Amino acid sequence: MSDARPRVAIIMGSPNDWKVMQAAEQMLDDLEIGSDARVISAHRTPERLTAFLATAEDDGIEVVIAGAGMAAHLAGVTAAHTMLPVLGVPLPGSDLQGLDALLATVQMPGGIPVATFAIGKAGAKNAALFAAAILARKDDTVRERLAKFREAQSAGVPERPPRD
Amino acid sequence: MSDARPRVAIIMGSPNDWKVMQAAEQMLDDLEIGSDARVISAHRTPERLTAFLATAEDDGIEVVIAGAGMAAHLAGVTAAHTMLPVLGVPLPGSDLQGLDALLATVQMPGGIPVATFAIGKAGAKNAALFAAAILARKDDTVRERLAKFREAQSAGVPERPPRD
Amino acid sequence: MSDARPRVAIIMGSPNDWKVMQAAEQMLDDLEIGSDARVISAHRTPERLTAFLATAEDDGIEVVIAGAGMAAHLAGVTAAHTMLPVLGVPLPGSDLQGLDALLATVQMPGGIPVATFAIGKAGAKNAALFAAAILARKDDTVRERLAKFREAQSAGVPERPPRD
Amino acid sequence: MSDARPRVAIIMGSPNDWKVMQAAEQMLDDLEIGSDARVISAHRTPERLTAFLATAEDDGIEVVIAGAGMAAHLAGVTAAHTMLPVLGVPLPGSDLQGLDALLATVQMPGGIPVATFAIGKAGAKNAALFAAAILARKDDTVRERLAKFREAQSAGVPERPPRD
Amino acid sequence: MSDARPRVAIIMGSPNDWKVMQAAEQMLDDLEIGSDARVISAHRTPERLTAFLATAEDDGIEVVIAGAGMAAHLAGVTAAHTMLPVLGVPLPGSDLQGLDALLATVQMPGGIPVATFAIGKAGAKNAALFAAAILARKDDTVRERLAKFREAQSAGVPERPPRD
Amino acid sequence: MSDARPRVAIIMGSPNDWKVMQAAEQMLDDLEIGSDARVISAHRTPERLTAFLATAEDDGIEVVIAGAGMAAHLAGVTAAHTMLPVLGVPLPGSDLQGLDALLATVQMPGGIPVATFAIGKAGAKNAALFAAAILARKDDTVRERLAKFREAQSAGVPERPPRD
Amino acid sequence: MSDARPRVAIIMGSPNDWKVMQAAEQMLDDLEIGSDARVISAHRTPERLTAFLATAEDDGIEVVIAGAGMAAHLAGVTAAHTMLPVLGVPLPGSDLQGLDALLATVQMPGGIPVATFAIGKAGAKNAALFAAAILARKDDTVRERLAKFREAQSAGVPERPPRD
Amino acid sequence: MSDARPRVAIIMGSPNDWKVMQAAEQMLDDLEIGSDARVISAHRTPERLTAFLATAEDDGIEVVIAGAGMAAHLAGVTAAHTMLPVLGVPLPGSDLQGLDALLATVQMPGGIPVATFAIGKAGAKNAALFAAAILARKDDTVRERLAKFREAQSAGVPERPPRD
Repeated sequence: MSDARPRVAIIMGSPNDWKVMQAAEQMLDDLEIGSDARVISAHRTPERLTAFLATAEDDGIEVVIAGAGMAAHLAGVTAAHTMLPVLGVPLPGSDLQGLDALLATVQMPGGIPVATFAIGKAGAKNAALFAAAILARKDDTVRERLAKFREAQSAGVPERPPRD
Repeated sequence: MSDARPRVAIIMGSPNDWKVMQAAEQMLDDLEIGSDARVISAHRTPERLTAFLATAEDDGIEVVIAGAGMAAHLAGVTAAHTMLPVLGVPLPGSDLQGLDALLATVQMPGGIPVATFAIGKAGAKNAALFAAAILARKDDTVRERLAKFREAQSAGVPERPPRD
Repeated sequence: MSDARPRVAIIMGSPNDWKVMQAAEQMLDDLEIGSDARVISAHRTPERLTAFLATAEDDGIEVVIAGAGMAAHLAGVTAAHTMLPVLGVPLPGSDLQGLDALLATVQMPGGIPVATFAIGKAGAKNAALFAAAILARKDDTVRERLAKFREAQSAGVPERPPRD
Repeated sequence: MSDARPRVAIIMGSPNDWKVMQAAEQMLDDLEIGSDARVISAHRTPERLTAFLATAEDDGIEVVIAGAGMAAHLAGVTAAHTMLPVLGVPLPGSDLQGLDALLATVQMPGGIPVATFAIGKAGAKNAALFAAAILARKDDTVRERLAKFREAQSAGVPERPPRD
Repeated sequence: MSDARPRVAIIMGSPNDWKVMQAAEQMLDDLEIGSDARVISAHRTPERLTAFLATAEDDGIEVVIAGAGMAAHLAGVTAAHTMLPVLGVPLPGSDLQGLDALLATVQMPGGIPVATFAIGKAGAKNAALFAAAILARKDDTVRERLAKFREAQSAGVPERPPRD
Repeated sequence: MSDARPRVAIIMGSPNDWKVMQAAEQMLDDLEIGSDARVISAHRTPERLTAFLATAEDDGIEVVIAGAGMAAHLAGVTAAHTMLPVLGVPLPGSDLQGLDALLATVQMPGGIPVATFAIGKAGAKNAALFAAAILARKDDTVRERLAKFREAQSAGVPERPPRD
Repeated sequence: MSDARPRVAIIMGSPNDWKVMQAAEQMLDDLEIGSDARVISAHRTPERLTAFLATAEDDGIEVVIAGAGMAAHLAGVTAAHTMLPVLGVPLPGSDLQGLDALLATVQMPGGIPVATFAIGKAGAKNAALFAAAILARKDDTVRERLAKFREAQSAGVPERPPRD
Repeated sequence: MSDARPRVAIIMGSPNDWKVMQAAEQMLDDLEIGSDARVISAHRTPERLTAFLATAEDDGIEVVIAGAGMAAHLAGVTAAHTMLPVLGVPLPGSDLQGLDALLATVQMPGGIPVATFAIGKAGAKNAALFAAAILARKDDTVRERLAKFREAQSAGVPERPPRD
């Protein structure tokens, strides 16, 4: 949880989702991008969602990452109430292993877009990287950190598989 | 479209959904239950949804039937804003033939229920019959009409398949 | 298991299903709605089902919640023999993780409705909440308890994810 | 529709199912095995099903072929009420193209078996061939006709694909 | 493993399949029907399969139960080489949890039938019960044992779920 | 095809994909955002892809929309070669109706993000809207046009379904 | 159908499969590789398959392409009887659109490999190209023709989508 | 890891994939075929892939086995850059259990083939056996070892399931 001014909101439907969604916070921290993580249920606290979104942009939020499982409506409902870019992360944990959350997030009808990423931690990490790519369009510091991350990531892939 | 006072609201995400959802209206008409059909998009007109739900119960609505396709959030978002029984009808038409709408409607997390029916017209008709079954718990007239429908339905099944 | 007069029947195909279906009983208990839990297999004890349904309404049952797994026929067969509202809960546990039970419950052909909820415990809890919503249409006490539950549920969602 | 004494019952949930299920009758006709085709809905005419099964064995029926679509309960409910071999044919036509009917037919819990065949016409034809294989266990005439069918079938496969 | 003369062959693609398929042997033992369990791989020992089938009927085998996983070809290839009734049991264990084996077993093209049962132990048990139902068409002793099993099974379903 | 300087590249694997992907161009045109549509196959013209990406950013491209079907690798391979935001549109048309393209696009492993949208035209339109939302982070003109589109879109939803 | 000595066998389960499988013949013709197309059903003509395979290698066949639909066993059974490389093409046309054929072909258990390609015509064409890649390992003429095809294919991708 | 000159490259997207992919190396070792295992990510190290492929054929590589999970692009991108036969192994481990990797590998559009094998270890082993089958077309030593393996494999299948 960086001390930097939050520019990315990470919202999730349940505190249990944090075990996956903290991968987004961690990735943003590594890129020194401030974030703000909140629990907001599209179904159980709909007013909290609209209240949050009413001031999010004025509060400095530029991108919203929304993680939810099962019939995952959080990202779509968020996108209905804001023009900020909304990144959806389908969460596993249901009996259908996240296929329900994936389809409920990605299959948005035309008119209100949600940018969707992979089910689970890979998706949470990639949503953070994509938020950085959006910020990098106008912020050279972010762009440089992102470039360094990409270089380090490539360099970190070992040439050979592990032999025990 | 019966002239009776509307007791059941039929809402749908797009005017295109009417070709399926009118099966609900027709079934309610046959049971002489008044209904009110509206187009309300969870994503494109979220304020219209909350405005409608704010007065629905006072307006005499006792059950809401919500039909939507793709990442179908309409029934779930409706259920988040009302304590009326919400019946969800997943609509086909997407490339995934309604599997996306089915999972996005039925897989609601614990706490906010949506009663879900089959994909498409069979689901729209059954949602109407189920609305009648709810009303029949306190309205003997509806109960009698429902009983007559059930009898007629049984009697209408032919004994033999058609020979041309 | 409340001492209140049972108004909701909770039936399930096998005693093993109880580990999921007790979530329905628990939710009804919390709402002080009496329930009656029984094991009735659509396949192994079909006569028990028809005998139970023959007197259920006279015994004060107003809603039936039916949980079953695999080729889950219990809810559909129940709905064929009663005009009471039937709520189906697809159970996981098969190799297909409940997808079979979901489709076998929700895809009812037009004419005999089963209101279907999510696979597993979330579905069992939501079926109980939906049963309460049906009873609330004519019982203000239930309506008030349901309203209190919904308020408490909203208030119970923490603002922030857990930091260890 | 052979004039021979019916030994195989072909039941289906709706008259619309006949366009698929007549493939079973045709195959039985070709093998000179008498059959009796009936429309019996597990959901809309449950009494008709139990009445039929109560006398089926005494009426000379030795095998029941049951075709149904969507949440296909017909074969399973039939098997619950008889010890005759029950052959299930999942029918397409739903938005899910018969995957729902397949799982609702084949995934029977342990204790009450339904022998399941492919979705649609291939399954209807194969159910008829399998009924013949059952009868052939005690009826040499059927066995010989089945053997001739198998030989003719093999011989009828062309060596080369068609060149136009 | 009963001492009775084997009338049912239980074949499986790998010795690992025995942990599931022994449910078929056990059920047949309970019904005092002799069986013969063998490992025969359609892919790795095709000659063993044809050799076995060449004499199976003369050896007294009346029904073949074939269990296999993944791209499960064993039941279909068996059915191609015999006119005996072939019962297919799709086995789980693959990454796709037996969906592959189910489709590879049940979706036989028209002409060569395989009677398919549920994935895993439920299917193995039901295949055994179905084999008994076939034998019961000409063997009253089997019919009586099967009737007793069915009665005992119904009686064994407890009325209430377990309270700890 | 707007005359404005292209800021969004629309690439697709085959000229046949244009019938879907032109929905992205149309939406960008409506928002007066210049775009550049190209056919680039990840498999058949890999060099064309790297050549295009080598200069894309210098050429003024700020977002890449990539549409592909079947084993859709185009968006992922694009993301591997650029730090620009890459938006993936899975295309239908295969026997699996785009489920293959959806999974091949959205399930990117952690490290290289692709923002994925719905299968087909809805996804193409939403990718364009999302591209606009990215540009709007630094371009008030785009933000205003996007706001107007959203308002018009909401206003354009009819209150009632069509009565013929 | 080239006059060249057949080096690749194209076998298929039914003459109806030819409308897809001729894409393999056409591709081989274009590469001037002789092929031999035959109808061989794994289920209806198993002896024809073993007879064909017994002499295939001596007859000059170096690769076998096997196309089949539904519970597609042809490629797997072929691989069980030969050490030649076997290429499987899953065919669509079933209610499950080839997903059954795909899983029945690709999910071969360890020990007997089938190289599997995409469902339908794309898979048939690619199987032919892959057969050429195998032959190219020892035949420079084939290698050169394959290289030319690849070059022409790349060159044939238009730079821009079609504008009408 | 044989000391023989590497003729088969085994590449994989992540060092974690080695726990599955070493089944390919082991099988090749058993057949005394030299192999070279490398970690090459299509997404994180695209240049490493093209550099490897630029010299692979000159370095003596005749077949490439590529294993990857999730949106598995490695095999397809490899095939785009080489005319060597590319064998794809879809890896499990994602929430979708490898269904994503399977479709992302096997559903290649026409023009660039990837020979695909089963998800996981069975697929890795079979890819190695298939590589051997390709080499055997021109190398009698490999052919003989493969024949011996096949014989030993058949002989190693026990006649009976294990009795404890």
